[in-house]
Amino acid sequence: MPDLSAVKAALKAQEIETPSWGYGNSGTRFKVFAQPGVPRDPFEKLDDAAQVHAATGVAPLVSLHIPWDRVDDYAALAVHAKERGLRLGAINSNTFQDDAYRLGSVAHPDPRVRRKAVDHLLECVDIMDETGSRDLKLWFADGTNYPGQDDMTARQERLAEGLSEVYARLGADQRMVLEYKLFEPAFYATDVPDWGTSYAHCLRLGPKAKVVVDTGHHAPGTNIEFIVAFLLREGKLGAFDFNSRFYADDDLMVGAADPFQLFRILHEVAKNGGFEKERQVAFMLDQCHNIEAKIPAVIRSVMNVQEATAKALLVDLDALRAAQRAGDVLGANAVLMDAYNTDVRPLLREVREEQGLHPDPLAAYAATGWQDHVAATRVGGTQAGWGA
Amino acid sequence: MPDLSAVKAALKAQEIETPSWGYGNSGTRFKVFAQPGVPRDPFEKLDDAAQVHAATGVAPLVSLHIPWDRVDDYAALAVHAKERGLRLGAINSNTFQDDAYRLGSVAHPDPRVRRKAVDHLLECVDIMDETGSRDLKLWFADGTNYPGQDDMTARQERLAEGLSEVYARLGADQRMVLEYKLFEPAFYATDVPDWGTSYAHCLRLGPKAKVVVDTGHHAPGTNIEFIVAFLLREGKLGAFDFNSRFYADDDLMVGAADPFQLFRILHEVAKNGGFEKERQVAFMLDQCHNIEAKIPAVIRSVMNVQEATAKALLVDLDALRAAQRAGDVLGANAVLMDAYNTDVRPLLREVREEQGLHPDPLAAYAATGWQDHVAATRVGGTQAGWGA
Amino acid sequence: MPDLSAVKAALKAQEIETPSWGYGNSGTRFKVFAQPGVPRDPFEKLDDAAQVHAATGVAPLVSLHIPWDRVDDYAALAVHAKERGLRLGAINSNTFQDDAYRLGSVAHPDPRVRRKAVDHLLECVDIMDETGSRDLKLWFADGTNYPGQDDMTARQERLAEGLSEVYARLGADQRMVLEYKLFEPAFYATDVPDWGTSYAHCLRLGPKAKVVVDTGHHAPGTNIEFIVAFLLREGKLGAFDFNSRFYADDDLMVGAADPFQLFRILHEVAKNGGFEKERQVAFMLDQCHNIEAKIPAVIRSVMNVQEATAKALLVDLDALRAAQRAGDVLGANAVLMDAYNTDVRPLLREVREEQGLHPDPLAAYAATGWQDHVAATRVGGTQAGWGA
Amino acid sequence: MPDLSAVKAALKAQEIETPSWGYGNSGTRFKVFAQPGVPRDPFEKLDDAAQVHAATGVAPLVSLHIPWDRVDDYAALAVHAKERGLRLGAINSNTFQDDAYRLGSVAHPDPRVRRKAVDHLLECVDIMDETGSRDLKLWFADGTNYPGQDDMTARQERLAEGLSEVYARLGADQRMVLEYKLFEPAFYATDVPDWGTSYAHCLRLGPKAKVVVDTGHHAPGTNIEFIVAFLLREGKLGAFDFNSRFYADDDLMVGAADPFQLFRILHEVAKNGGFEKERQVAFMLDQCHNIEAKIPAVIRSVMNVQEATAKALLVDLDALRAAQRAGDVLGANAVLMDAYNTDVRPLLREVREEQGLHPDPLAAYAATGWQDHVAATRVGGTQAGWGA
Repeated sequence: MPDLSAVKAALKAQEIETPSWGYGNSGTRFKVFAQPGVPRDPFEKLDDAAQVHAATGVAPLVSLHIPWDRVDDYAALAVHAKERGLRLGAINSNTFQDDAYRLGSVAHPDPRVRRKAVDHLLECVDIMDETGSRDLKLWFADGTNYPGQDDMTARQERLAEGLSEVYARLGADQRMVLEYKLFEPAFYATDVPDWGTSYAHCLRLGPKAKVVVDTGHHAPGTNIEFIVAFLLREGKLGAFDFNSRFYADDDLMVGAADPFQLFRILHEVAKNGGFEKERQVAFMLDQCHNIEAKIPAVIRSVMNVQEATAKALLVDLDALRAAQRAGDVLGANAVLMDAYNTDVRPLLREVREEQGLHPDPLAAYAATGWQDHVAATRVGGTQAGWGA
Repeated sequence: MPDLSAVKAALKAQEIETPSWGYGNSGTRFKVFAQPGVPRDPFEKLDDAAQVHAATGVAPLVSLHIPWDRVDDYAALAVHAKERGLRLGAINSNTFQDDAYRLGSVAHPDPRVRRKAVDHLLECVDIMDETGSRDLKLWFADGTNYPGQDDMTARQERLAEGLSEVYARLGADQRMVLEYKLFEPAFYATDVPDWGTSYAHCLRLGPKAKVVVDTGHHAPGTNIEFIVAFLLREGKLGAFDFNSRFYADDDLMVGAADPFQLFRILHEVAKNGGFEKERQVAFMLDQCHNIEAKIPAVIRSVMNVQEATAKALLVDLDALRAAQRAGDVLGANAVLMDAYNTDVRPLLREVREEQGLHPDPLAAYAATGWQDHVAATRVGGTQAGWGA
Repeated sequence: MPDLSAVKAALKAQEIETPSWGYGNSGTRFKVFAQPGVPRDPFEKLDDAAQVHAATGVAPLVSLHIPWDRVDDYAALAVHAKERGLRLGAINSNTFQDDAYRLGSVAHPDPRVRRKAVDHLLECVDIMDETGSRDLKLWFADGTNYPGQDDMTARQERLAEGLSEVYARLGADQRMVLEYKLFEPAFYATDVPDWGTSYAHCLRLGPKAKVVVDTGHHAPGTNIEFIVAFLLREGKLGAFDFNSRFYADDDLMVGAADPFQLFRILHEVAKNGGFEKERQVAFMLDQCHNIEAKIPAVIRSVMNVQEATAKALLVDLDALRAAQRAGDVLGANAVLMDAYNTDVRPLLREVREEQGLHPDPLAAYAATGWQDHVAATRVGGTQAGWGA
Repeated sequence: MPDLSAVKAALKAQEIETPSWGYGNSGTRFKVFAQPGVPRDPFEKLDDAAQVHAATGVAPLVSLHIPWDRVDDYAALAVHAKERGLRLGAINSNTFQDDAYRLGSVAHPDPRVRRKAVDHLLECVDIMDETGSRDLKLWFADGTNYPGQDDMTARQERLAEGLSEVYARLGADQRMVLEYKLFEPAFYATDVPDWGTSYAHCLRLGPKAKVVVDTGHHAPGTNIEFIVAFLLREGKLGAFDFNSRFYADDDLMVGAADPFQLFRILHEVAKNGGFEKERQVAFMLDQCHNIEAKIPAVIRSVMNVQEATAKALLVDLDALRAAQRAGDVLGANAVLMDAYNTDVRPLLREVREEQGLHPDPLAAYAATGWQDHVAATRVGGTQAGWGA
């Protein structure tokens, strides 16, 4: 049986990174429903993120998105974060919202558009220098909507060239993490559609390039934990973008659609050493809280990752391996399910109390009155959203 | 073998309805790329639709979308259409873009929101009275994003109640056509997710309620032509919303992603009498031309439906049935494929010339100089898009 | 909060039906791995089913499959069952393993094959008369592999005709439950591919015809609990065929692939009165234990249904509805998840002890030594499997 | 515009490899329908394959499957082939039908089973030495059905070790081609589920290891032509296993389910040099003719590949690239569709006549009377099928 104090220690050491854009408005192509009190600038987003960290104790990192989080003084932003117990996390690039990017960015047929896109990526590394961020997170909307629209092979060449230039610019402790996605907004072919494509590019680029697994970016039926285990074995898992989905890239709260899948993923992480700091696997959220209250939704998401992590850490690996070696299908499955079926909420309440936190993060947050406060004070200006 | 003059007559008699919103800007949740020359009001949309009809000869109907196409004087709009050889087609309701609809419309837990939604639908019937439209096209974004968010059964009750009130308001020659969609924008449960749900409601409502098959609204692997054949057999197929998709509701040009599927669908239509006027099956497009030129894209879509229709009409039904009766799997399949593999473009050029049209609709449109004209003259104002 | 004694009472009253063929060998098209001790006839299958019921206390019914379970004397079989505390459940027809059925059965183009198929179904009703079974369970492998192979509409006519004849033969207390399945073994079009098709036929047939929901028979992404809720509202849910799947009709143990989905399904059942005896919803398993030990796998499956049922019964419906009415997305979801996250295994151990059972069914079964006994004694003869 | 004589030359030079098992019986887990005249041994399979080659002129290669095609004297088999204008193609291994392989083969937890499996693979290389085959084709049924059943990472280690031993045994001109498959017969995790996994292993192994793309082995929505283009760019595309599917691994005739997809795949092959002999891409069929006549089905499949190849060769690459460079979405798509919409059957009839063949392969085959001949003479013995 796993040692309970080790499990608790691991839970206390966990760091979950929340996305600045999760605090802003988001929606579908049909409608963005604005919510009262939504932040109007990156500083206010950090204020909200600080609420999540205060309530949970395990969310000290905040990802930024450029240009949505562009500020004049990134050092001031980093200080603002630090004063609230936060650190600035990954810098997410955006090469999909400029009119120039209608047909792609780094893989665009026109070299001028590619130049513009690569320059933006290089600018993001400049920002990383200022914020002290380790990771440049790359997601490309590049692709085509119609067969024949562009040459798939040529697009790979251009993509490789652009990535290579950016890779060369990375500092000694900086990394590039490359996301893949099956579709949307491209509807015929996406230039980095699957882990194999991201992996092949990262392999060519070198050790500072790693793969990002966004849990909502796969074809139906894909076994995500297999990919996670495979990438950990290859030393190429850079980060998670956690969220959940029933259909496509629904971007629901992580753990909401298939909590068992989240557990299986984190079981592979735990079993293959992925929680060890030196493995540098980043546990990020990337979600859209379109209809639900945003800060509580992020808190719930953090709790869902914690609960799945706790269950994963409770798996009796000795018993599991013994059953696996014996070819005992039902016995091995039962060991795993035993951990999954455990109600870990009491354990997590205990962990939080030992950390000096309220045992119930949502109650703790509700008690702050923050929601009423921001609804009353964040008046005027433009609420943050996906628009630049 | 099918009689060629009958095939030509059927092709000349075909009417394809184009959507007013297909001439406006559209996009994904990531970005709407505006295009030069896009219409700024419903009158300009009709001007564009007239170009499509002029080039193809088979697109005399235009669907409207309320409130996107709200005008002070619908009679004037109908006259504007008539002067351009067009007729106003289905009225599409919109109960998803108002802030009140965050948690649904006709199925919303709050009766005030339901009232508002039903009132909008009734208003659409009022508009139908003015435009002379036959069909009220209903698509509901209603649904839930999270398990437990609302009660599925209660939502069905409310939906049924709302539909019933609107059904009672329909005139003698008016119909209600009810669309289904698997997901988006709802990401856990959609209130009319599949044809079975739409069919069951329509059955309860009565003969003026029919099902709409949007070719992009199904789960992966769904055999759409089966549904079409089934609904035709039941007398419950009201309309098509044509488009195509590789993944989800991609809304690409019809026939672009899977031309063989389009042929199979239209083969079922042809074989089961669905092209007969008295069956009142409406052949509508519902597409998004996010990155491609809009008017040429609509023309291409109309041509794709024509080509698939021509192939469907060329199927040698006698030979097909003989092979089917004989249990000759390969022979029966070969009869169908023989029609599909035929290059019907020469036939369609001939048909167009017989109708006094240019044999190549895209060349005809290019020759008009319309694109340059509207790009130069539609300056100022706000381009039409999905925003109200 | 739900009343715990009512929950316990409901759990004790639950009846889960196990399939005779689940005790026999099964496999994929690639290989059937035989297991030691597998039954050689229906009597021995009942002996195994009796072990499951003895261990769990909630599995008194056993479905038969004709011709796999054909015996000379069904009355004797019923007595054999009764002596072991069992009852004979649904009679499952088989119109897919005869050479005549290469191109279908009740929907076959040749009337002689249809006659043969319908005769088989009528024979199954005769058997029901002898066994006292209530339900004729119909699953048709009918369909086509290639477009054009046969006429979809004609196949529906033939299917309707065949069903109608069999329906007329049903006794006053007998029912026909009609299964649907997306694909396999038909690979282009299946004649009853979805719930809508089954529902439409059942509606036409009358009140004794109901729909069977096999949890593995849907397109990817289908929301099964929606279908369950819809059919319960319509009074047309006849039975479940429980199993689980990651991909297609994998026929894994129920609850193994997506325990949260099973919970959501049973939540709809509970909320909509589906556990009430007079609703006559049959809770059947239909699984293939290809590589795992069969009897323990059935026991585990029964336990999985029990655990999901317990969680479903623990949902605080008052709190849920209050949150739903208030439009509190996160709150309503939290009420549901609270029940799901509860570890109900202690409760079920308690329930079993109150019923005079061992708290751990798998341990109870292991202690019987049955597996060694049958491995040693069931020697010679032909092991039961899917072959006739 | 493509040079027509070059297109014809390419069509005449094309070599399509047919699978020996395609001539034998096959089916689903529900039923194998036997057909009259089916071969009873590998020599008779070659006799049937010779009919396909005689009718089409482009199917000179036949894949063998061990142990289904095990013979005492492979040299004699090669002579038998040669006398009929055929050559023996890839050797397909089978590590899934022995009782020992219930939990896997090269990835099995038990080293004895792994030894057995690797020994079989080495035996296959021995056979390649005798038959003169270039390719060892590896498809592993290995995987798990239940979460926890075995350790994914450990299975990768074992797989890598086994592959490595076999790779070392390959002769100078021999290759190993590694197939991937999403699922079936494993239903939770497959050990080589996607192209990325196969690619990563092949990369480690060395230049003699290449990836096999079976067109039926992907998750829904996967863009197969992207994978083909990517692997060609990486020099890692070894072979195709052609077939088609609507749902899972349906193994229908290639081009039957989605002829446009087949065209898009072959367009990428053509555009990226994949038809050049020195690229050594093998064009194999791997299909199951469960309900249709087998030899005509193989002929039809060969014709479907030919037709899609002809269309792919007719794409006006200069015009395509000009439109792509100009960012002309509709124009580029139109160039591709123009080739696809061309009826290439007259061209292929011409090609065949120039080769001294009957213009219609199916008519040519029918005229031989072979089907009646084998039905009359292949009496007694055991028909070949998937059983060893």
